[in-house]
Amino acid sequence: MSKFLLIPDSFKGTMSSEEICAIMEKAIRKNQPEADIITIPVADGGEGSVDAFLRAMGGEKINVTVKGPFFEEMEAFYGMIDQGRIAVIEMAACAGLPLVEGKADPRMTTTYGVGQLMEDAVRRGCRKIIMGLGGSCTNDAGTGAAAALGVVFRDKSGKSFIPVGGTLSEIEHVDTSGLLPGLKGIELVAMCDIDNPLYGEKGAAYVFSPQKGATPEVVKELDEGLRHLDQVLQKDLGLALAEVKGAGAAGGMGCGMVAFFGAALQMGIETVLDTVRFDEMLQGADYVISGEGKIDSQSIRGKVVIGIAKRTKKAKVPLIAVVGDIGDGIEEAYEQGVSGIFSINRVAVEYKDARLRAKEDLYLTVDNLMRFLKAIGK
Amino acid sequence: MSKFLLIPDSFKGTMSSEEICAIMEKAIRKNQPEADIITIPVADGGEGSVDAFLRAMGGEKINVTVKGPFFEEMEAFYGMIDQGRIAVIEMAACAGLPLVEGKADPRMTTTYGVGQLMEDAVRRGCRKIIMGLGGSCTNDAGTGAAAALGVVFRDKSGKSFIPVGGTLSEIEHVDTSGLLPGLKGIELVAMCDIDNPLYGEKGAAYVFSPQKGATPEVVKELDEGLRHLDQVLQKDLGLALAEVKGAGAAGGMGCGMVAFFGAALQMGIETVLDTVRFDEMLQGADYVISGEGKIDSQSIRGKVVIGIAKRTKKAKVPLIAVVGDIGDGIEEAYEQGVSGIFSINRVAVEYKDARLRAKEDLYLTVDNLMRFLKAIGK
Repeated sequence: MSKFLLIPDSFKGTMSSEEICAIMEKAIRKNQPEADIITIPVADGGEGSVDAFLRAMGGEKINVTVKGPFFEEMEAFYGMIDQGRIAVIEMAACAGLPLVEGKADPRMTTTYGVGQLMEDAVRRGCRKIIMGLGGSCTNDAGTGAAAALGVVFRDKSGKSFIPVGGTLSEIEHVDTSGLLPGLKGIELVAMCDIDNPLYGEKGAAYVFSPQKGATPEVVKELDEGLRHLDQVLQKDLGLALAEVKGAGAAGGMGCGMVAFFGAALQMGIETVLDTVRFDEMLQGADYVISGEGKIDSQSIRGKVVIGIAKRTKKAKVPLIAVVGDIGDGIEEAYEQGVSGIFSINRVAVEYKDARLRAKEDLYLTVDNLMRFLKAIGK
Repeated sequence: MSKFLLIPDSFKGTMSSEEICAIMEKAIRKNQPEADIITIPVADGGEGSVDAFLRAMGGEKINVTVKGPFFEEMEAFYGMIDQGRIAVIEMAACAGLPLVEGKADPRMTTTYGVGQLMEDAVRRGCRKIIMGLGGSCTNDAGTGAAAALGVVFRDKSGKSFIPVGGTLSEIEHVDTSGLLPGLKGIELVAMCDIDNPLYGEKGAAYVFSPQKGATPEVVKELDEGLRHLDQVLQKDLGLALAEVKGAGAAGGMGCGMVAFFGAALQMGIETVLDTVRFDEMLQGADYVISGEGKIDSQSIRGKVVIGIAKRTKKAKVPLIAVVGDIGDGIEEAYEQGVSGIFSINRVAVEYKDARLRAKEDLYLTVDNLMRFLKAIGK
């Protein structure tokens, strides 16, 4: 009886991590009914991240009424895992793009509700908060969340206000002295897979706000707001964070998480692996199967499969990568610890056709691998 | 140190069996410099078959001046293998389509030279002749080859003549009593991978003669000639061969080989496996790697990979199939003995693009398999 750990990334646009886990498990089970199979859906910080953690680890989903993107009351949620020690929040739950469909406007939207979710988790006694940055409709650099948790922003006239993307430029002073005391001593990790700085050509506004509804003029306005906030943070808090990798994630939420809450920005896969205690799971495992939509020289820089490879290599457990496309420059993947890379492409067709048959082809690929392992006495 | 037998079919239109062998060997050698690797290029009966046998087994290439497709003198060749016991002839050597480029006419062309090659091999003392049916420009049902070896064809007036596709209808009598005596006792095997009957809708003329230059009118004429020949064979030799599977191969050469020389029509892969003594090679082998352009429910009916699978299964040696496309309905392939099927497709692109990168993708696929085997301790 073999022990399998299944921990695939989603194939973007084709299959979720969870769907992939289910298909892989079915194919393995067919060939080895008695196999010990552990599935770990990979959260990427965006929508579905809370569910992924809950499925991988068990726990409780907690519903809370908080403010939505336009400060309206709404029902949102987060997850409590590890016997209530860890809260998992996806900011998309109350600041997500699907919530503002048809009326997206990153000048107006807030992360205030995200702060309220954090507050609820703190009040329930969690010791760690995992924050998923992803799928946001905001560009407020987390100032809304900060305000919800007691940070005070004042304008020229000294009046306090809750900034949004379009009013970041009006911030004259920031005061963190009123921050919720319970937050102290709580470990805060933000899952963040992108490298973008806070502002500028590669910053939050220029790269991500157009997909949140910003016109070129609005992009410029938002970018100037972020630049201004950076000046204020330098002046009042002594923090220069604009160039931190990931500062520009989720409309500057990456920067805000660090500035206001002292969060660590971490590659999502590292967060997942640490949280599920992957190294312990590896003990006694015969195979780890991961995968992603495309493996190439780019994905080797810190994406899911390679994050896993570093650990399987250390533990000397074979790592199989089942992927959509195998791009060029993958030698390094082997060096990092990937044992074998198998593409689910099995007929020569374009992606638009391949994606329609991806589930079936994934099943066949894993089924084939299982048959092969059996045939060679493994 | 592992022992590998490499015996891939060609990927039609992309890579020859021999090219595939070389690429596979290179990928294996890179990972296991000390490996014992035996390559067996698979002959399909067409052009290149003699060379494939010579490369797999060693032997001598013999050049002979014989008659070409239009009865012109030409230099052709065949192979002597197995210490001169077996002659391998490809009919394409003197009756091949490339020889008549620009002037193809299956009413006029002859297999006479093929008979002359057989005669030469017999005179040199071979005990077996392997005849590759494939790539022919003829539709004479082997009457030309038969005439070269002493079979007499007569017309209504009793005059003997050498029939061609366009004159089969003129045959009134066939007399095999003058057949070269040396042919007796020589085993004759014709490599034949198609099922077509001699004539009719699925016969030699309708299916294959258009690609040999026949217009619709000529197709009809050729088909009638084959029907007529069948009547004569029934009347004079008591043989009804029209429905024999493969009778329609190579312009009716399949039928002629049986009728005039008592040949056995055999799946090419069986001929190859028997000839190279594949069962002996299997002893001590750790892996057999085969492959074909596409594996699907059709290829499972008697094509290369499955022919090999039947033997590897018996010998309990794992068989890896490295293929272009993996079609549907391949469950049976596993049942027949294929251990694992790996497509070289590694990016989702159409065949027209995939074929351009096939060599590189084949190398990567085998390299990946080798790395994987190593990682799992094999």
